[in-house]
Amino acid sequence: MPAPPTPPRSARQARLYTIIFEADTPAGRRFDIWLIWAIALSLLVVVLDSIEAVSARLGGVLTVTEWLFTLTFTAEYLARLYCAPQPLRYARSFFGVVDLLAVLPTYLALLFPELHALIDVRVLRLLRVFRVFKLTQYLAEYTYLSRAVAASRRKILVFLSFVLMLVMVAGTLMYVVEGPAHGFTSIPTAMYWAVTTMTTVGFGDLTPKTDLGRLLASLMMLMGWGVLAVPTGIVTAEMVSTQRDTEPPTTRTCPHCLTEGLGAQHRHCHQCGTALPPHQT
Amino acid sequence: MPAPPTPPRSARQARLYTIIFEADTPAGRRFDIWLIWAIALSLLVVVLDSIEAVSARLGGVLTVTEWLFTLTFTAEYLARLYCAPQPLRYARSFFGVVDLLAVLPTYLALLFPELHALIDVRVLRLLRVFRVFKLTQYLAEYTYLSRAVAASRRKILVFLSFVLMLVMVAGTLMYVVEGPAHGFTSIPTAMYWAVTTMTTVGFGDLTPKTDLGRLLASLMMLMGWGVLAVPTGIVTAEMVSTQRDTEPPTTRTCPHCLTEGLGAQHRHCHQCGTALPPHQT
Amino acid sequence: MPAPPTPPRSARQARLYTIIFEADTPAGRRFDIWLIWAIALSLLVVVLDSIEAVSARLGGVLTVTEWLFTLTFTAEYLARLYCAPQPLRYARSFFGVVDLLAVLPTYLALLFPELHALIDVRVLRLLRVFRVFKLTQYLAEYTYLSRAVAASRRKILVFLSFVLMLVMVAGTLMYVVEGPAHGFTSIPTAMYWAVTTMTTVGFGDLTPKTDLGRLLASLMMLMGWGVLAVPTGIVTAEMVSTQRDTEPPTTRTCPHCLTEGLGAQHRHCHQCGTALPPHQT
Amino acid sequence: MPAPPTPPRSARQARLYTIIFEADTPAGRRFDIWLIWAIALSLLVVVLDSIEAVSARLGGVLTVTEWLFTLTFTAEYLARLYCAPQPLRYARSFFGVVDLLAVLPTYLALLFPELHALIDVRVLRLLRVFRVFKLTQYLAEYTYLSRAVAASRRKILVFLSFVLMLVMVAGTLMYVVEGPAHGFTSIPTAMYWAVTTMTTVGFGDLTPKTDLGRLLASLMMLMGWGVLAVPTGIVTAEMVSTQRDTEPPTTRTCPHCLTEGLGAQHRHCHQCGTALPPHQT
Repeated sequence: MPAPPTPPRSARQARLYTIIFEADTPAGRRFDIWLIWAIALSLLVVVLDSIEAVSARLGGVLTVTEWLFTLTFTAEYLARLYCAPQPLRYARSFFGVVDLLAVLPTYLALLFPELHALIDVRVLRLLRVFRVFKLTQYLAEYTYLSRAVAASRRKILVFLSFVLMLVMVAGTLMYVVEGPAHGFTSIPTAMYWAVTTMTTVGFGDLTPKTDLGRLLASLMMLMGWGVLAVPTGIVTAEMVSTQRDTEPPTTRTCPHCLTEGLGAQHRHCHQCGTALPPHQT
Repeated sequence: MPAPPTPPRSARQARLYTIIFEADTPAGRRFDIWLIWAIALSLLVVVLDSIEAVSARLGGVLTVTEWLFTLTFTAEYLARLYCAPQPLRYARSFFGVVDLLAVLPTYLALLFPELHALIDVRVLRLLRVFRVFKLTQYLAEYTYLSRAVAASRRKILVFLSFVLMLVMVAGTLMYVVEGPAHGFTSIPTAMYWAVTTMTTVGFGDLTPKTDLGRLLASLMMLMGWGVLAVPTGIVTAEMVSTQRDTEPPTTRTCPHCLTEGLGAQHRHCHQCGTALPPHQT
Repeated sequence: MPAPPTPPRSARQARLYTIIFEADTPAGRRFDIWLIWAIALSLLVVVLDSIEAVSARLGGVLTVTEWLFTLTFTAEYLARLYCAPQPLRYARSFFGVVDLLAVLPTYLALLFPELHALIDVRVLRLLRVFRVFKLTQYLAEYTYLSRAVAASRRKILVFLSFVLMLVMVAGTLMYVVEGPAHGFTSIPTAMYWAVTTMTTVGFGDLTPKTDLGRLLASLMMLMGWGVLAVPTGIVTAEMVSTQRDTEPPTTRTCPHCLTEGLGAQHRHCHQCGTALPPHQT
Repeated sequence: MPAPPTPPRSARQARLYTIIFEADTPAGRRFDIWLIWAIALSLLVVVLDSIEAVSARLGGVLTVTEWLFTLTFTAEYLARLYCAPQPLRYARSFFGVVDLLAVLPTYLALLFPELHALIDVRVLRLLRVFRVFKLTQYLAEYTYLSRAVAASRRKILVFLSFVLMLVMVAGTLMYVVEGPAHGFTSIPTAMYWAVTTMTTVGFGDLTPKTDLGRLLASLMMLMGWGVLAVPTGIVTAEMVSTQRDTEPPTTRTCPHCLTEGLGAQHRHCHQCGTALPPHQT
């Protein structure tokens, strides 16, 4: 929540705040669109840099572009700190941390070359796009989906804990049955295989070789499929009921006591007993 | 939309238009059925031609048949151009382009032998079948399905953008953790692997080898499955609500007491007993 | 439909018919239970015979047992022909053919040793179990499931034709992009790979090696998952609506004109206008 | 059901019973939380012990810790036997057996070193966690999920028997078509492959090599996917209807006009306006 209740301190800060943190003014919209482009392009640089053939040929250009983006994002981060009414609160918020992680790796890789492996943490810049989502016309769909998922959160947690137990028991069983000779070298490895199997991914880097192991694996696959029908069921049921609830019963209101939401067939108010006029839609 | 509002220019063009573009006359139906067979057979030729053993033995026959179909489709394309009220508009429509792509590759491969690789673009002829779908008795089902999918279009777009972000972050993580030594040679390659894993396809051409990589992969599979329950939920919820809406409770209203939602077969109002006028739809 | 309208010809045939074709008498039930056991054991023999280690050691026993079962099933087949009111109609019915296929392979393999490969057609004996399903207490569930699937039959057909087109276009694309050098030796092979990918099976015997091929494959997987959410949606929507329809609105009946199914809130019959007594449940 | 109707025999047993078997007193809650930690840590020991690198370095520590946990669980088992009102009934209950299996393997491995392979049965300790679930605030979600799954139990059984038949027929077909030369060495192996394919796991350790085999496999995958949409449909439909039923419309009835289904907050009948007595549940 980067928008705290206290007002910004000066007119300039207030203006900057409206542009950088909000999107209701033309300037604010322009800023957000520019930000999305900058993020997308900087990610393209990160991705291209990871392809050896490209980085060998365009190494110099990529490095320069990367530094341009890093400096720009640094300036933006400082501007955010400057105009936020409570800078510390912003710095510790989720997006504040993401904004910092978007620039820190490049500096760190310069200062401590042995940390170069971490430079790809820059890809977390992607998360900054979520802040700009309030721009889009897809907000209703986004809200609908996240509400359905949030409503099923606890059910999915219970379900996941059940799956983890199943994975642990099944993994251990396969470790005992197949053993290190067939690649199941430890219980964690066997659990990795069990997840692979029960989610129907099935890489095939580890496979049962004994007859008993194959029988167990077959049972696990069938059970896994049945079990994994559950999250689909949870999410779907939530969506069906969300969709049903979006059609409110009526907006009929008692003319005497102003009770709302009277049923369409009601002929007397159920709160005060007043005879109702016929319901019209 | 190959049928513009302006009428065709001559009686002959009008007759041809009815046969080629429409399917309500016997001649029009016969033409559509002939077209489906021609498309199916020409595709069979394309497929057979790609099997080395067959093309080595039947090469000559296949080439001749291919040219027969190409000439036929060319004639049909010219006839469509001739009888369409606005030829240019037809030529630039979706089906106009598909019709052209159905014949162009064969000519191009003859003129520029180095373009031979593109000759299999001919398989796009298949798309022409969709035009003829209006023939079938499965139109209602086709409409039902495409309506349910279309209604969920925006939700699925939001969902896909979310999945792409997840794929990018997960792919980069695996690239950092596993690295080129285990086959994750670049971020795009790692993203390909992430898609493979999160859609539960799991080819197994790339697999994590380190313990940390396997832990991350297990988390991704579980999350991926949960996340991919969402499109199923979207489509199902849409279908359930579509199915519910296809039996509307009518808007018939009692002329005396204004009770609404009377059944189409009702002959008296169920609230006041008034005889109803016959229901009109 | 093995039970034709004409009555069986003699008392003995009638008695046999009740035992063999029906399951309402104690003898009929005992016969069906015995049949299920015989089918299960004979299948066990077929399966064991296919395991080389077992067939090498128990070959003689298995052959004898197999002949015992074949002779038993032959006797049963002849008995069915004898007591069926219209033997020819039975012989040409679905179950008549299955009953014949259950015994024929063993005889054929004896007469024409070169047909030995076909002997495993005996596994179709399994289908005979379906006839006995009428016995079980699971009939309601069986009916519920098959009704939901049958109701979605046409939608699934339309969907399948769409998937087949997608598979053909995607397969051809991959054949052009990857080519025989990477294992995509012909369009049918590439189509097999496309089915493998879009159903999320992902064997991994064929995989894209080029960057463009991997991009295309990623798109196919995402699309494939979205597309395959559709059959789940179809079946689920059908089941939800079937479940909803199994709760009939009411059994309220007009005391004057005997119209049934009046709504619980109705105060006058909607057919004749008679004032109704208050609805009681 | 470890809580039989007869009361425990002495005050001390009663006190112990409240602590060990129940979770409503502070002592009982503390005991349950301690138990979960003990189970989790002892499982960690089992898992670490299976990783060769770890067990080589920490072997001694792990053995000692394991014995500590085994002795603790033994004491707990004896305490449960001591305070249970009907010790034998507890010992034969599901959780009684699980409690015994949690400690037995360690003793057996000590006495009969050749049974060492069975020591990982200790992982079944995990099941003991389920007993403590009554603690959590997730009980409602747990009940909801298990009710939805239990209600679909019979449908899923019918469905599974159908899938098993399909697997058997498909496996035999592939055994006949591909044969031992391509890895399908016996019908059970081919059935394992069929399960792998129809659940969309697709390990890829066995794959069809012939054209006919690939065609059959493609059909199986498509069919498999359609078929496996059924359990998702069953569970989802059950959840949708469970969710609908959890908001019953009440059975409250107007004492004057007998209108039913009045809302719990209504104070006047919506049909005749009579003032209602307060709602009792």
